[in-house]
Amino acid sequence: MTALERISNRTCGDGQKKAVLTVEKILERVKKDGDTALIEYTKKFDGFDPDPLEVPLEAIERAWEETPKPLQDALITAKHRIQDFHQKQIPKNILFKGIEGETLGRRWQPVQKAGIYIPGGRASYPSTVLMNAIPASVAGVKEIIMVSPGGSNGLVNQTVLAAAYITGIKTVFRIGGAQAIGAMAYGTNTIPKVNVISGPGNLYVTLAKKYVYGDVGIDALAGPSEVLIIADNSADVRHIAADLLAQAEHDPLAATILLTTNSVLAEKIDDEIMEQLEEHPRKEICLKALKDWGLIVICNDLETCAKLTDYFAPEHLELLLKMPYQVADKINNAGAIFIGAWSPEATGDYLAGPNHTLPTSGTARFSGALGVETFMKNTSIIEFNKQAFDKNSKAIIELANSEGLHSHAKSIEIRLSKSSEEI
Amino acid sequence: MTALERISNRTCGDGQKKAVLTVEKILERVKKDGDTALIEYTKKFDGFDPDPLEVPLEAIERAWEETPKPLQDALITAKHRIQDFHQKQIPKNILFKGIEGETLGRRWQPVQKAGIYIPGGRASYPSTVLMNAIPASVAGVKEIIMVSPGGSNGLVNQTVLAAAYITGIKTVFRIGGAQAIGAMAYGTNTIPKVNVISGPGNLYVTLAKKYVYGDVGIDALAGPSEVLIIADNSADVRHIAADLLAQAEHDPLAATILLTTNSVLAEKIDDEIMEQLEEHPRKEICLKALKDWGLIVICNDLETCAKLTDYFAPEHLELLLKMPYQVADKINNAGAIFIGAWSPEATGDYLAGPNHTLPTSGTARFSGALGVETFMKNTSIIEFNKQAFDKNSKAIIELANSEGLHSHAKSIEIRLSKSSEEI
Repeated sequence: MTALERISNRTCGDGQKKAVLTVEKILERVKKDGDTALIEYTKKFDGFDPDPLEVPLEAIERAWEETPKPLQDALITAKHRIQDFHQKQIPKNILFKGIEGETLGRRWQPVQKAGIYIPGGRASYPSTVLMNAIPASVAGVKEIIMVSPGGSNGLVNQTVLAAAYITGIKTVFRIGGAQAIGAMAYGTNTIPKVNVISGPGNLYVTLAKKYVYGDVGIDALAGPSEVLIIADNSADVRHIAADLLAQAEHDPLAATILLTTNSVLAEKIDDEIMEQLEEHPRKEICLKALKDWGLIVICNDLETCAKLTDYFAPEHLELLLKMPYQVADKINNAGAIFIGAWSPEATGDYLAGPNHTLPTSGTARFSGALGVETFMKNTSIIEFNKQAFDKNSKAIIELANSEGLHSHAKSIEIRLSKSSEEI
Repeated sequence: MTALERISNRTCGDGQKKAVLTVEKILERVKKDGDTALIEYTKKFDGFDPDPLEVPLEAIERAWEETPKPLQDALITAKHRIQDFHQKQIPKNILFKGIEGETLGRRWQPVQKAGIYIPGGRASYPSTVLMNAIPASVAGVKEIIMVSPGGSNGLVNQTVLAAAYITGIKTVFRIGGAQAIGAMAYGTNTIPKVNVISGPGNLYVTLAKKYVYGDVGIDALAGPSEVLIIADNSADVRHIAADLLAQAEHDPLAATILLTTNSVLAEKIDDEIMEQLEEHPRKEICLKALKDWGLIVICNDLETCAKLTDYFAPEHLELLLKMPYQVADKINNAGAIFIGAWSPEATGDYLAGPNHTLPTSGTARFSGALGVETFMKNTSIIEFNKQAFDKNSKAIIELANSEGLHSHAKSIEIRLSKSSEEI
């Protein structure tokens, strides 16, 4: 399993330690100097003067109006489907009476402020706006702000602004990088301090999210994207090639893995990929990703495919199989499972409904998609009555004493004495 | 609100930066040298030779057998109540057909391995075993391991082992500190690598959990404990004093806050506390906590009490009020709310049912209690049929092209062409 392990642990080299120090410095500066630091770093890293930091509401509205009708329609379709799916995720409150008549519960509430990070540059994706803003909005978050770095002309990507518009976001700041994460975590004169930060970013953004985790909540630490396809002889080699390339085109670090029981297919796939690559606008990125982090494994049976998949714990799993559920039911670790020929990953990336923010680098072993819960938290409710108290007081005192916690026991005893006084 | 802010941000001083470096060094060592490093650090920090690392199963069984019957009964009562409450938390799978007949879903599964950290020393709490092991077990985790540092004699606290016994934990290692967190996160020859680490610890343990977060899942980053009590003239001053002390006795950093509309009560509380402190075995700890992080605020009305509470976002909130729900319904940010005179915090600490692992230091703004979800993760399911695919293909292609993702669009087009071929 060495090849899978190597791919799972792929990183962008030994720059990480240095990046950690850079990020710490940026965050401490932003914490201390607020807007001044923010403006300085934006000039330095993004190459424009971001003063004023906020994108005018008119610019957000104009971005929507200037979006071509077919793209407007597509954004609206996506919005509705994502909204519908996330509405089903809202966790139910628990509230019930225990056997002694005591009330116990767990109450869910939205956080009060959320901050959404949308990358700029190569990865300027309106779909990311939908996939972060909609869950926050469905969760019931009252105040959602968005940050996205301007280009060298100082302008935020227009389709990103259009997506912000239809999700109801009215507050957008044209900042990015670790400094934007710091601004939302600590607050500045201009940028409000939020409770949860979500959204993907480059290594610096991810390290900054890890640093501020605990001061604020975060969605997850996203690594480079990956797809694992399991295909048998019912699969179309053209589909497989297109779906692998749809992953490779993201990033030179994107991983593309094919597990198949069909050796003929495994042989054909290279030619098909090269053919589809011929006029590909991101040919170089794709080739680098495929060369560094591509893998084809011919397995004896689907059982083995499932086992290797669970071991790798892919972000995206496509099952191009005659009997896909035979494998789907065996999988423990996967961010999302795309079942059958009509469900290429792109359906889920854009509009199927489930979130496209998924666990990468094997983190599907312990985490799942971004959801409405990312923007909610729960509060326990405990209301003992006299009967429940009397029934359990002895056990509580026993446990408190076993832990040497005198006043824990005392807080029960003192009520017991009153309870007997009352009798 | 300055006093509340100061308390919310309480730390153990400027040692944190140094502790971060120490922890990083320990974790990197454990990652590299495994058991050798683990044994070395245990000798150095815990003062005994931990070889063999594992506590024999007989010792766990014996610890239970040797536990006095009343404490056994208390542990069993607590176990059942905690189990019942957590069973209600198991998240429901989502699986439904969309309007075009496509299948969409979210499937919850337990993680495969969980590791529970139980502190030694002053904070050696069997209740912590129950509050971590039971949610993992209710979640369905097959393999649960526990670590807890031995005392200077090398032995793990006997009641902690007894609690492990009744929650079904069979694998216990007598290690602690950052090195134990590293061992569970990275795995060694002896300690299995787990998917989720939960459980409280000192600053080093907490920093280690933050460091490994992302390699594994963690429950939360726990800070020192805190209680905020809102009391009106229906409250008994002896209850309030006992409940404040039950917090103060934990830790010199524990915070105890009383908000009250009753100035007479505010005046009486000091005397009552001093009286209850007279024979307190942890008098010094209590006094230090009260002096450094205690606060009494007389508020004009309950509205103000609720506002200040939301601002502070306490771990534990006690409502000793005639009409407690008038305040409870207004609270956004609290880990757990204890309602009425029969619900001192100790009920929830031990056996009411809800988890006692709660968000500290204001993190109730964005997080809640440890729950079965801590040990579970979800996988999205997407199965488009031809009809859903055809209906949405145009929108997906629009969105893919707007993001410049050629192969994302291609992965749709290539299926469309086949779809028309078939017609």
